Amino acid sequence: MSARPAAIATLLDLPKPYLLFLGDTREPGYAKTAFGLRDWAPELCIGEFALTEDTVSTGLKRLSPAAAYAQGARAVVIGVANYGGVILPSWLDSLVEALASGLDIISGMHSPLSSVPALREAADRHGRRLIDVRKPPASIPVATGARRTGRRLLTVGTDCALGKKYTALSLTREFAARGVDAEFRATGQTGILIAGRGIPMDAVVADFEAGAAELLSPDAAADHWDIIEGQGSLFHPAFAAVSLGLLHGSQPDIVVVCHQPGRTTMSGLPDYPVPSLEDTIDMTLRLGRRTNPSIRCAGISLNTAHLDEAERRQAFDIAERSLGLPAADPMRPGAALDALVDSCLRAN
Amino acid sequence: MSARPAAIATLLDLPKPYLLFLGDTREPGYAKTAFGLRDWAPELCIGEFALTEDTVSTGLKRLSPAAAYAQGARAVVIGVANYGGVILPSWLDSLVEALASGLDIISGMHSPLSSVPALREAADRHGRRLIDVRKPPASIPVATGARRTGRRLLTVGTDCALGKKYTALSLTREFAARGVDAEFRATGQTGILIAGRGIPMDAVVADFEAGAAELLSPDAAADHWDIIEGQGSLFHPAFAAVSLGLLHGSQPDIVVVCHQPGRTTMSGLPDYPVPSLEDTIDMTLRLGRRTNPSIRCAGISLNTAHLDEAERRQAFDIAERSLGLPAADPMRPGAALDALVDSCLRAN
Repeated sequence: MSARPAAIATLLDLPKPYLLFLGDTREPGYAKTAFGLRDWAPELCIGEFALTEDTVSTGLKRLSPAAAYAQGARAVVIGVANYGGVILPSWLDSLVEALASGLDIISGMHSPLSSVPALREAADRHGRRLIDVRKPPASIPVATGARRTGRRLLTVGTDCALGKKYTALSLTREFAARGVDAEFRATGQTGILIAGRGIPMDAVVADFEAGAAELLSPDAAADHWDIIEGQGSLFHPAFAAVSLGLLHGSQPDIVVVCHQPGRTTMSGLPDYPVPSLEDTIDMTLRLGRRTNPSIRCAGISLNTAHLDEAERRQAFDIAERSLGLPAADPMRPGAALDALVDSCLRAN
Repeated sequence: MSARPAAIATLLDLPKPYLLFLGDTREPGYAKTAFGLRDWAPELCIGEFALTEDTVSTGLKRLSPAAAYAQGARAVVIGVANYGGVILPSWLDSLVEALASGLDIISGMHSPLSSVPALREAADRHGRRLIDVRKPPASIPVATGARRTGRRLLTVGTDCALGKKYTALSLTREFAARGVDAEFRATGQTGILIAGRGIPMDAVVADFEAGAAELLSPDAAADHWDIIEGQGSLFHPAFAAVSLGLLHGSQPDIVVVCHQPGRTTMSGLPDYPVPSLEDTIDMTLRLGRRTNPSIRCAGISLNTAHLDEAERRQAFDIAERSLGLPAADPMRPGAALDALVDSCLRAN
């Protein structure tokens, strides 16, 4: 009797491989998305598309949209950002050319691609898609809480923006290097571009947050690992709802807690202290037990880019001694990272 | 440099008073919204609008839309539900008549009013609004975590659908009866109709969930109480994200925990046991302390409609003895409810 269509929800699934659009950007800091894709998804990157000679470069082949299409590319990805998060007028002719060449356009920018009339019209004319990776898929179901097969790791954090995505990507790579069947599961814009699919968890309606996380890491083979990119922090006064829905719906067997030694207050909130690793582990396990009673913390991922070698060694020691868990910086392969991966892979 | 309009977010604020639309509904169980409005917001209800003689009645005056408008009504509220949550074809002429008479239409049904072409066209023609209370206001900001003035009470629950709205409404009434400046803050469809405004918290995008809760109970006079309708449960595998965002953003000074004695599993999830009152209080206070360090639990609201007097007395005793907190059923005024209100109103 319901009048709703019975749409089946799926992840965002992007057309690929990509041509990386760099516009006329001269500042490498504004091209982080392109560099991230080159580093983490080289198999998805056919080449780069720059508008001027002095545009930044990823080092990939410079190709026209038509040449990229001929070499297999199926989408152009906006690989640069600017302050307003908007498509610049100076980019329009080239993006229309990409659509005419058979490429879809993918963007993680703030303003939707379809808000630009010239792109909307060209996409209609050429039968191409404008894909905003900030927009979640339609028809996400309410979570069921039913246990799923396969194994899951979720990266969680004492705060936002301190390495949860990077840690998940690194662990996926390390698992794979040991012959473990592992897949990175993306929950944010950059992660979705790298994985070629995923769900932007912060843009999901709250009632469906845990349901989206269930959709993201479905039933799998018993020895398969989904390595899920965490979001926010259970202790963040603005974003904890995202973190809890993701934790409940992911039903992780293990969590790796990400932390930046020396950060004392939450990003953007100088009145809120960063919680301790102990409190973060305790709260995560208590809440996570609701949907996976055997959840455990496998170790700590420390973002130590700002520390020298002695300080780094000390940060690892403090974490390991006080928590009895391995600590490593995934940016620095070596014995510490091996020990963290060992801990992840031992049976629960 | 941002291209976004600087819209100012506000609560949904409904046109009022109301004419209650009953359609041709003969089954009182389908007219719960109308009965709830009659009971909890009599000052907002000008009369009822029924299509046939044998339609259910709220006991209010039967009025035509034109007569209701002449007596001050500014909106017709769909006060009945049906299985599909849709506007029935047999209602259309009457709803168009209401628009022509100067009334807006308000609905909490599942399918949006604007999805009915006849209503959309008539609303355009007469310059009237179609308002869906399931749709949150635009431009909700990210939460700041900044402490606000005034006092706040949030009802929380061991599960969904066991009396959080009813408890908040009852406590608002009891506070007011003692001369305390108190306002009910609505977070769900029925509550929003009763209050005439609010935010449907389950329909807010997760990143803005706590921000919506901050918007809902703004700075107020030091002795003013906002009594906030809770949603979901921190222990519900599907809806905990809503509950945590609402808890963080509400910054409650006190919580009242709502529970139904004898309910053993979560609504719709037979594999998930209902958490204990102890665990619910402990988790709520631990998480709530993040944005209000002086949060405390003032007492327990028990839904005892299904118990006889001896069982009810026993349920109160067990809760009070094990927790050291007053317990009452807000459906039953008396000494127990007075003790719960006393506990709410003592200084933190």
